[in-house]
Amino acid sequence: MKSRRLIALLTDFGDGDGFVGAMRGVIAEIAPGTQVIDIAHDVPPQSPLDGAFVLWSVYQFFPAGTIFVAVVDPGVGTERRILCVQTSRHLFLAPENGLLDLVLSQEKIVRAVQVTNRRYFLKNVSDTFHGRDIFAPVAAHLSNGISLDVLGERIALVQPSGGFLNVPERGEATGRVLHIDRFGNIVTNLRFSQGDRKRNVDITIKRRHVCGLYKTYAEIASGRLGALVGSHGLIEIALRDGRASDVIHVSAGALVKIRIEA
Amino acid sequence: MKSRRLIALLTDFGDGDGFVGAMRGVIAEIAPGTQVIDIAHDVPPQSPLDGAFVLWSVYQFFPAGTIFVAVVDPGVGTERRILCVQTSRHLFLAPENGLLDLVLSQEKIVRAVQVTNRRYFLKNVSDTFHGRDIFAPVAAHLSNGISLDVLGERIALVQPSGGFLNVPERGEATGRVLHIDRFGNIVTNLRFSQGDRKRNVDITIKRRHVCGLYKTYAEIASGRLGALVGSHGLIEIALRDGRASDVIHVSAGALVKIRIEA
Amino acid sequence: MKSRRLIALLTDFGDGDGFVGAMRGVIAEIAPGTQVIDIAHDVPPQSPLDGAFVLWSVYQFFPAGTIFVAVVDPGVGTERRILCVQTSRHLFLAPENGLLDLVLSQEKIVRAVQVTNRRYFLKNVSDTFHGRDIFAPVAAHLSNGISLDVLGERIALVQPSGGFLNVPERGEATGRVLHIDRFGNIVTNLRFSQGDRKRNVDITIKRRHVCGLYKTYAEIASGRLGALVGSHGLIEIALRDGRASDVIHVSAGALVKIRIEA
Repeated sequence: MKSRRLIALLTDFGDGDGFVGAMRGVIAEIAPGTQVIDIAHDVPPQSPLDGAFVLWSVYQFFPAGTIFVAVVDPGVGTERRILCVQTSRHLFLAPENGLLDLVLSQEKIVRAVQVTNRRYFLKNVSDTFHGRDIFAPVAAHLSNGISLDVLGERIALVQPSGGFLNVPERGEATGRVLHIDRFGNIVTNLRFSQGDRKRNVDITIKRRHVCGLYKTYAEIASGRLGALVGSHGLIEIALRDGRASDVIHVSAGALVKIRIEA
Repeated sequence: MKSRRLIALLTDFGDGDGFVGAMRGVIAEIAPGTQVIDIAHDVPPQSPLDGAFVLWSVYQFFPAGTIFVAVVDPGVGTERRILCVQTSRHLFLAPENGLLDLVLSQEKIVRAVQVTNRRYFLKNVSDTFHGRDIFAPVAAHLSNGISLDVLGERIALVQPSGGFLNVPERGEATGRVLHIDRFGNIVTNLRFSQGDRKRNVDITIKRRHVCGLYKTYAEIASGRLGALVGSHGLIEIALRDGRASDVIHVSAGALVKIRIEA
Repeated sequence: MKSRRLIALLTDFGDGDGFVGAMRGVIAEIAPGTQVIDIAHDVPPQSPLDGAFVLWSVYQFFPAGTIFVAVVDPGVGTERRILCVQTSRHLFLAPENGLLDLVLSQEKIVRAVQVTNRRYFLKNVSDTFHGRDIFAPVAAHLSNGISLDVLGERIALVQPSGGFLNVPERGEATGRVLHIDRFGNIVTNLRFSQGDRKRNVDITIKRRHVCGLYKTYAEIASGRLGALVGSHGLIEIALRDGRASDVIHVSAGALVKIRIEA
């Protein structure tokens, strides 16, 4: 038997309602033995912005051939399209609402299809739970080896413009918040090349100033805010022995200003 | 080697204490290589009513032969019985506290056994954690191929009366809340046959009135309550861009009145 | 193909950021097909004390040969060491911050190594996410069959002194809180041998008195606090139909005094 392709799941469904359980059941029924890996299911509900960040932050670490299924879908049941996109190494299945924007801004789009072929959906498709009725069965059929071309018409997707901003050597730039993480760290889209961390960096967010750039959380003085380059190569704001997001009340999309002095 | 049967787990154990981890370890020890699928573990603690709904909402999507293990068990260590029930397609293992009522109201009970044979339990059985000491090892042995008849005496289970209420063409009916989901939607036991959604529907719950029946969440006006037929074929109450359960404070079991005018 | 060794994961990463997802992706890339079992990921953030308890509470239930990876790591990026420890049945990989203390106090340390060999890390090691960049790839290589000796120098680990306290037949003893569980139960390090539960037991915690020792949660009167011997053989304090931790505000490490009268 040909070995099946790995499926990686990202949703905002949480772990209390069986939404992800139903998706896993559908996959096990259609593609028995397929390995399903959970990326995250407690993404802030109904926030494709946060989902896009989380998906981008992990996808490069998965094996070639992985089928990514991302369901953060406030527009479920409306006319929003469902996309299946082939990049050089991976396959992505998601509603067209920005969830794939960060990933696709960094990847070559090899093929893109609008998923419409009901043959690969469950027989009864509800208006409110496409994760179970469309995304899971389509992913399972892809894992079984169907081509994405049978799913629907090819479409021309414009590559999203980059969601990241390279911090200049000196001067100012304005970026935005991509995500608040479990520890209350505020992750921005400001990309900082590994270099001299001691340059004068001044960050303004919601009228608060955060100065300097640290190397580790432990270097920040207890109870103080500090910025550092997180594990994604992006500037994030942390509060030592606390949660930065409890002090600075922002969510994904908020503006962040950075000023660098030589 | 004979392939082992899939085990699907539902608990109210959360993900912070290792309760589910211990169950998974026990299964891996007794039935190495068995596939374990998580249905949900963040069911409201100690609420068999919610657990019964979540189990019912997913079981039909799992492959034939799946062994379902449901542990929401406020009476652990008391004289409540542990049931193992064979239906036409699946096997269910759960405490006798209503957890299986919704499923069994829809299924033919082929065989039912009271689980008492300590040979298939862990050597030391605690008074407070039967998930690890009884449910997990019994499920693993079932996955290995034992018959449910070796687990204990056959018992005559009366099929639970239906937990669902078909909404009449016109007139009134009184149902109840089955579950509050992650998005704050209030799911009822009122079953609505797919038909004309435009009929005049008036729902009363906790002295609030919710009028009309929508097709998708996105159709409801922002900030307004609306009812729709959810992905389970049941009427649920949603708040657009918010959580209905923040506005209507109910939990599983609360009464819901519906009135239909032609 | 030689079958790979099972990996069991414990972290404080939650399910909202993809931190565990990234670790799973790395493992799938380096050791495809390895079975990964989740112990718990919602351990109180940055609390090695809680993590140590949860790890200890489950490890004995896992098969021989399991590779345990525990990442609760407030000192990530600092000079704290990373340990790989072989016991008689298992392998443990964790930062040196107390996470392994309860387990190692009960086990013979066969070999211990300080993990330093960058050959088994990801190419780029961040300062803030060693779970993805060090722990996951090292665990995957161990699952593939490398010896722990290639990971770094052998070190002499002193066996931690026991974290548990056997409750005396009579008299007083002072222990501490190990963990608060999902149900608000306060788990202590007071070990009680199975015996006469009816002895007069008086527990003082945060100036509150809890009297008597119950067998099951259901025996405690509604709304009352009670102590019982939990599923780990340790005394825990529960509130019937409520959360003891809502009434007694403590966290891991707090003192607990017990007095036994004959």
